[in-house]
Amino acid sequence: MYKHILFATELNETKSYIEEKVKKLQRLTQAKLSVIHVVEPIPSAYYSGEYGIISGADSVDSIGSTKILEERSKEVLQPLVKRLNITEQDLHISIGHASGEILAFAEKENVDLIITSSHGVHGLQLLLGSTTNAILHGAKCDVLAVRLKE
Amino acid sequence: MYKHILFATELNETKSYIEEKVKKLQRLTQAKLSVIHVVEPIPSAYYSGEYGIISGADSVDSIGSTKILEERSKEVLQPLVKRLNITEQDLHISIGHASGEILAFAEKENVDLIITSSHGVHGLQLLLGSTTNAILHGAKCDVLAVRLKE
Repeated sequence: MYKHILFATELNETKSYIEEKVKKLQRLTQAKLSVIHVVEPIPSAYYSGEYGIISGADSVDSIGSTKILEERSKEVLQPLVKRLNITEQDLHISIGHASGEILAFAEKENVDLIITSSHGVHGLQLLLGSTTNAILHGAKCDVLAVRLKE
Repeated sequence: MYKHILFATELNETKSYIEEKVKKLQRLTQAKLSVIHVVEPIPSAYYSGEYGIISGADSVDSIGSTKILEERSKEVLQPLVKRLNITEQDLHISIGHASGEILAFAEKENVDLIITSSHGVHGLQLLLGSTTNAILHGAKCDVLAVRLKE
């Protein structure tokens, strides 16, 4: 039914029940499974403390911080790689605009199903709604939006 | 994985490959399968020929026309009922606002996956985009948006 499933994940979704659905669907369809997480560069204004989001980071520039986030993402997602029984090569950390990176990967790698979550839950994750929306509108393949529990 | 799948269909999607996906997913998950089609009442202006969409219908009022469309939908969807191997009772024709009817049914019947298409293709079907959007935003369950071929 599907040959290549792409699970677009946020860091805080690991260990959640969305992962169980990804696993089950992969098993049922016997599809190849890739995981993507996109680190969105944070405007330097956040680092200057202007918005009060990240404090004490005056000495870290935006590019450096993005790099740190990228490496941290890889670490955080290691247990997921194991739980999903995929290889390191099937975990993709991209830097850029979330939906754009996900759609570009999907097209390049002939993904036929993107799995994403349909509602963000906390703080910055509210942005997820617009990412899912953009994925849905831009995807050339099927999209499964898994409803996150409140 | 899923226990009750709801396939929200447009009339012109029957016989298309979306149906194959619905069938396969139902088989893989062994879920109960329901089909819903919503007839949206057409403003009487269309019947007066004002927009030139339906001509020669001056003597048919809006309510009567909706009723005709409802019955016609049932007829048109009969072959789908057979192909999907469901009972007549699992085919639901609703009258109202598409996304509202679909979401209400899903909630009432404990649907855990709604399957819809992600892009309309012809004429009025362009409206489907907003229906899918509204389903995605309003659904309390998972939504699979199947990308229609161009």
